[in-house]
Amino acid sequence: MSHDALREQVCQANLDLVKAGLVILTWGNVSGVDRDAGVMAIKPSGVAYDALRPEDIVVVSLDTGDVVEGSLRPSSDTPTHLVLYREFPRIGGVAHTHSAAAVSWAQAERDVPCFGTTHADHFRGCVPVTRRMRADEIRGAYEHNTGLLIAESFRERGLDPSDVPGVLVAGHGPFAWGHDVPNAVENAVALEATARMALDTLRINPDARAIDDTLLERHHRRKHGAEAYYGQGKA
Amino acid sequence: MSHDALREQVCQANLDLVKAGLVILTWGNVSGVDRDAGVMAIKPSGVAYDALRPEDIVVVSLDTGDVVEGSLRPSSDTPTHLVLYREFPRIGGVAHTHSAAAVSWAQAERDVPCFGTTHADHFRGCVPVTRRMRADEIRGAYEHNTGLLIAESFRERGLDPSDVPGVLVAGHGPFAWGHDVPNAVENAVALEATARMALDTLRINPDARAIDDTLLERHHRRKHGAEAYYGQGKA
Amino acid sequence: MSHDALREQVCQANLDLVKAGLVILTWGNVSGVDRDAGVMAIKPSGVAYDALRPEDIVVVSLDTGDVVEGSLRPSSDTPTHLVLYREFPRIGGVAHTHSAAAVSWAQAERDVPCFGTTHADHFRGCVPVTRRMRADEIRGAYEHNTGLLIAESFRERGLDPSDVPGVLVAGHGPFAWGHDVPNAVENAVALEATARMALDTLRINPDARAIDDTLLERHHRRKHGAEAYYGQGKA
Amino acid sequence: MSHDALREQVCQANLDLVKAGLVILTWGNVSGVDRDAGVMAIKPSGVAYDALRPEDIVVVSLDTGDVVEGSLRPSSDTPTHLVLYREFPRIGGVAHTHSAAAVSWAQAERDVPCFGTTHADHFRGCVPVTRRMRADEIRGAYEHNTGLLIAESFRERGLDPSDVPGVLVAGHGPFAWGHDVPNAVENAVALEATARMALDTLRINPDARAIDDTLLERHHRRKHGAEAYYGQGKA
Repeated sequence: MSHDALREQVCQANLDLVKAGLVILTWGNVSGVDRDAGVMAIKPSGVAYDALRPEDIVVVSLDTGDVVEGSLRPSSDTPTHLVLYREFPRIGGVAHTHSAAAVSWAQAERDVPCFGTTHADHFRGCVPVTRRMRADEIRGAYEHNTGLLIAESFRERGLDPSDVPGVLVAGHGPFAWGHDVPNAVENAVALEATARMALDTLRINPDARAIDDTLLERHHRRKHGAEAYYGQGKA
Repeated sequence: MSHDALREQVCQANLDLVKAGLVILTWGNVSGVDRDAGVMAIKPSGVAYDALRPEDIVVVSLDTGDVVEGSLRPSSDTPTHLVLYREFPRIGGVAHTHSAAAVSWAQAERDVPCFGTTHADHFRGCVPVTRRMRADEIRGAYEHNTGLLIAESFRERGLDPSDVPGVLVAGHGPFAWGHDVPNAVENAVALEATARMALDTLRINPDARAIDDTLLERHHRRKHGAEAYYGQGKA
Repeated sequence: MSHDALREQVCQANLDLVKAGLVILTWGNVSGVDRDAGVMAIKPSGVAYDALRPEDIVVVSLDTGDVVEGSLRPSSDTPTHLVLYREFPRIGGVAHTHSAAAVSWAQAERDVPCFGTTHADHFRGCVPVTRRMRADEIRGAYEHNTGLLIAESFRERGLDPSDVPGVLVAGHGPFAWGHDVPNAVENAVALEATARMALDTLRINPDARAIDDTLLERHHRRKHGAEAYYGQGKA
Repeated sequence: MSHDALREQVCQANLDLVKAGLVILTWGNVSGVDRDAGVMAIKPSGVAYDALRPEDIVVVSLDTGDVVEGSLRPSSDTPTHLVLYREFPRIGGVAHTHSAAAVSWAQAERDVPCFGTTHADHFRGCVPVTRRMRADEIRGAYEHNTGLLIAESFRERGLDPSDVPGVLVAGHGPFAWGHDVPNAVENAVALEATARMALDTLRINPDARAIDDTLLERHHRRKHGAEAYYGQGKA
């Protein structure tokens, strides 16, 4: 059984990431999952975006990580994506970038505070930064452990990955996800934009405060869940 | 009676907002009013700009907010626009964005000071930030109350919306308006540009001072009112 | 006698300013002078750049400021340009913008320090900011007085406009000039770039020091005067 | 014997530098070396990028600096490039820019700290800034001495130019290099991006710390040396 539709969608999502200005050189990759088929499709490692075609997208087993379809080597971040799909069973796509503002917060090892409704529309509260990885985690299955570190952060803080579809890995950069592949890209774009705004907010007012919980909840519900009234609704 | 000309103009204005770099994802909407016909035309909710056509623009009653023309759902910010047209009887267009610098000032809950003639050409004095909304305002008719909050700010500060065609809603972002639809877009662009410059001005000199009132008045009169001598004059 | 070549050159220079990203809305204008013919050509006031054609460029008398050729109203900044050509007899072109970083320094009322060779290649020492204009200067022939203020700044500081081809008018923005029209645009681009770099230099190191005079002189001479060895030389 | 392939490659690399947004006006130049032929190819001085063709690229002797092929004058920075090829025998290309963030660090006279994996993927530790040049070095063979200053910095700090393929010349700007010409451009892009991120990292957290050595080594080895597992491998 082929996975042409998934590869097509993942290829397009990788190009959308570039179009949104989130990618420098080849730093970024988007994946998508087909849980019924037990596979994940992801960008090949270190391939230039100009030349990226659906047939370059690599399909791997969600279970073993083995290549199922495609002749190129999958992204070196593949094990991180795989862990995220296993740990967060309701997500359908993952987007990893080195977008400038989000990386800056990750390098500063600070959560991005929820300073406004732009943030609240996508992330229900601050976007967390993980702890630093320990030396043994780095020396071992590094990319796999990156995924476990993200899952640990969400577990320890009691966060639902559907409420907060993104994270900053300390000293590294952002991972965003979504209920499907385009939504993962959208959340990556939103994370970069809100990270940039949060940075400038603090420059204007170092004592800026997060928005009130009532406003956070209102905005999040405008776009998410049964009461959502943003957009044209589900067909 | 159809409203093709208004829809065409509002469609174009929404695309101009994108061209000016003020829109991320689908965060932004422009409306225009036909006061004689008692209607407002506005962007549909959550529709991608690439695909936006005049026939997608939704026409609603200025009085009731009911859809008069168009098959899509109007922007979720429609009630805010309606209140602005009712409260500010001389405005002809409204542009709402989440442009980065203006949002940062809104999140910092600081007025944008009038640091220069770029600002004075468009805004006669600082661009005000509203107070935070109360929980009851947020839980109730939120978007409607956002409009009332803006009107309250102008009333309490004794500001004329024709002199200061823009505002920052605390923890949210900018609304700009104008005597017609293109002028609303122009003021949204000017607000973002002056917000960015004000931010950098403070970085260079934290004690930067507003320009003198004489200069403020001179520049504002260059572009506005009976003595205006900027541009090619009215035909 | 017609001035087609000058109008063509000034039209192109205005478009180059836009292409270089220095212009927001219609904020900017370039002029060129023909001293033998006693005329200056300048952008018309408030005209959109998309539609700008050589025949829109307005030619005025260098002496009286009266329109000599062209059917549109010249830029409202025309009197400032005229004073600069009269006061600085060796310049051939003037470019005025509201480019973001240069405006920020003008609003901060700080000279742009010569922090590096990028700056020294174009400006022999810091780019000066003028004093604020007095109320009587603003209420009178404001644009004319802006030109006089610039000339006063150079006279009082003992600066040669050929060495330092640019200035910041306090609370307003940059004017740059050059030995010809393209060189005026080049200096406007260099001023914005070095203003941006100077701003970020201070963010990294608030105690950053200007470069040594030996380096300043070396770099300035690489590009200017009899010993210049940058570029392909004069044909 | 002609050097068409090298000129073609160097021309393309100069255009890639522009495409990556690293070049303002004509500030930037890329060179490539053919060590077997004993020549270096470099951009001509002060030529606009729009018009740059392979036949404009100037080929000079690696030994004497004399022009071997081409009718234009080579970049005024040619002597710096020549010294770098002689001092760093394993590099194949050099890219010099005045890209904004890297220049800001050079002007601030601060090393760019290794705040994250984006940096570590390209530079094994901080990117060093040189000392200021002495007056006698500036007055003498200035561009040649710039190259010697860079080599001195690496020698004194015990840095391997293959590990840290870039430097900031104090009060001037960045030079980057690589094992071949495209790799030099890639490192110039990476240096600008990481310089920008480092600047913003410090704005968010003035006490931000460099990443742990274990993570630095891991990331550097992912892309470099015998154990590299990023990309599609060597054919």
